[in-house]
Amino acid sequence: MLRAIPEPPVSVQVGPGDDAAVVQGQAITVDALVEGVHWNDRLGPEDVGYKSVAVSVSDLAAMGARPAWVVLALSVPAPVDLAWVEALATGVGSACRSFAVALVGGDVTRSPGPRYLSVTMGGPCPRPVTRSGAHAGDWLWVTGTLGLAGAGYLLDAPPPEALEALRRPRPPLPFALALADAGLASAMMDLSDGLATDLPRLCAASGLGGQVDPRSLPLHPTLGRIEDPVPLQVGAGDDYELMFTAPPQAEEQVRALAEKNGVAVTAIGSLTSPGPVELIGRPWPPSFSHFGASTPGEVR
Amino acid sequence: MLRAIPEPPVSVQVGPGDDAAVVQGQAITVDALVEGVHWNDRLGPEDVGYKSVAVSVSDLAAMGARPAWVVLALSVPAPVDLAWVEALATGVGSACRSFAVALVGGDVTRSPGPRYLSVTMGGPCPRPVTRSGAHAGDWLWVTGTLGLAGAGYLLDAPPPEALEALRRPRPPLPFALALADAGLASAMMDLSDGLATDLPRLCAASGLGGQVDPRSLPLHPTLGRIEDPVPLQVGAGDDYELMFTAPPQAEEQVRALAEKNGVAVTAIGSLTSPGPVELIGRPWPPSFSHFGASTPGEVR
Repeated sequence: MLRAIPEPPVSVQVGPGDDAAVVQGQAITVDALVEGVHWNDRLGPEDVGYKSVAVSVSDLAAMGARPAWVVLALSVPAPVDLAWVEALATGVGSACRSFAVALVGGDVTRSPGPRYLSVTMGGPCPRPVTRSGAHAGDWLWVTGTLGLAGAGYLLDAPPPEALEALRRPRPPLPFALALADAGLASAMMDLSDGLATDLPRLCAASGLGGQVDPRSLPLHPTLGRIEDPVPLQVGAGDDYELMFTAPPQAEEQVRALAEKNGVAVTAIGSLTSPGPVELIGRPWPPSFSHFGASTPGEVR
Repeated sequence: MLRAIPEPPVSVQVGPGDDAAVVQGQAITVDALVEGVHWNDRLGPEDVGYKSVAVSVSDLAAMGARPAWVVLALSVPAPVDLAWVEALATGVGSACRSFAVALVGGDVTRSPGPRYLSVTMGGPCPRPVTRSGAHAGDWLWVTGTLGLAGAGYLLDAPPPEALEALRRPRPPLPFALALADAGLASAMMDLSDGLATDLPRLCAASGLGGQVDPRSLPLHPTLGRIEDPVPLQVGAGDDYELMFTAPPQAEEQVRALAEKNGVAVTAIGSLTSPGPVELIGRPWPPSFSHFGASTPGEVR
């Protein structure tokens, strides 16, 4: 179903299977968020609205695309809870302003089931960075820290910083654009489902294996008191940080660009010849869904 | 919630409230289809797939835009009924080929409720035709015939033509593009929810009243045996024909363009000074939702 059907009048540069499609120089991403699947009561309607926009910004950023427009489809049970919808709209508006995206349209319908939201966002993508361009020997980098949003979702009594990370992801858009513009990243994607799920996707798309050093995974100070944060760091999702690859000799430039954009970057491993995707010295922790929480993302 | 938030870098030519938004010369439309709300068991999965694309083609056509790309978000209950999803994909592919649209991406997620599909489509729109451009005295035109799809949805034993009209709408895309290109239509929208709902929308957008002569409504021969087809013709939806306005002196050109494109057109009334929207000689029949069937379109 997700195969592209290219037609003569349309130039499809990147089809299904990446963070976004690229059609005639424009990146387009679609995401569905279902109540009870993609959010629970740790997110209020304003958070859901904000996050629905931010996760699409993250997808476009990961392609090297600048978000320009967004449309929403919302389905809600009747009778409509207007306060809920208005709070959602407040969050949408707040994120649109934060990331300079224009909300240009929407469709609101009845749902006999849970609340359902789909977000489609597009914007110019002059130089797409896909998941498939990594080379063996490239270093693997991530922005920010890993696991904080997962802690917000999964811990019984999450610290406020973790709830904030869960509710208000802040994808590093300017850095992503600068990285794409400089041609430094050989491959890039966003960390939405967690490293344990997302790194194998990048490796598969590039036809490579990978190794990650768990001791190098960037940790937010708040998670320092957790005995073993690695399961949260690689098994949980929702960080909406960038994961990218670059040749070792690009290290200086990557660090300079990150500093210029106020973003922390950490080299956490490298891409290898075709083979397994490994965490050095320990097995991959179970992914998010095995924590007993709802499964984000795709039907498995 | 559906107000546009224009930002400096994006030129929004048409914001929310029309059949599609127009951003930097590109029309974009989003539609959500919920099982049990927008389709029932008279539509199989292949029909749903076909129709989900065709209704967005209809929205873009009504703006004078040529569909180029489409993305889908699908939510289905677990465990996934693969045969259902594959039949949906077959219908999507068939419509994409029919209308020369490239399916460039999608998102598939779990739904704890009904099946849910959202479709976002875009394409170039060099000369947008909105709902708001009609003038008092303009004639009101429709393409094709009215009520056949509604008969397919609402009648106990619908004729095969009516079921086909319901399942496989064929919006008159080439004619719509020719009409927009020629600058003949002062306002245009598609008939998705039925004349009783859609004409007041066009009149409101143009700040005008309107009069429709019920005797002039084009009738499919199949509906000739129904004693009073007018309720179906104006109260039911799902025709996905075009409704447009043009000055009286454009009649010859409109008819010539329709003939050239193999489309039937009928003048059914006219736009009047600000005032009521009327069916001459009788009240508006109740709209679709009052037939006891599910309500298409917006939350009311």
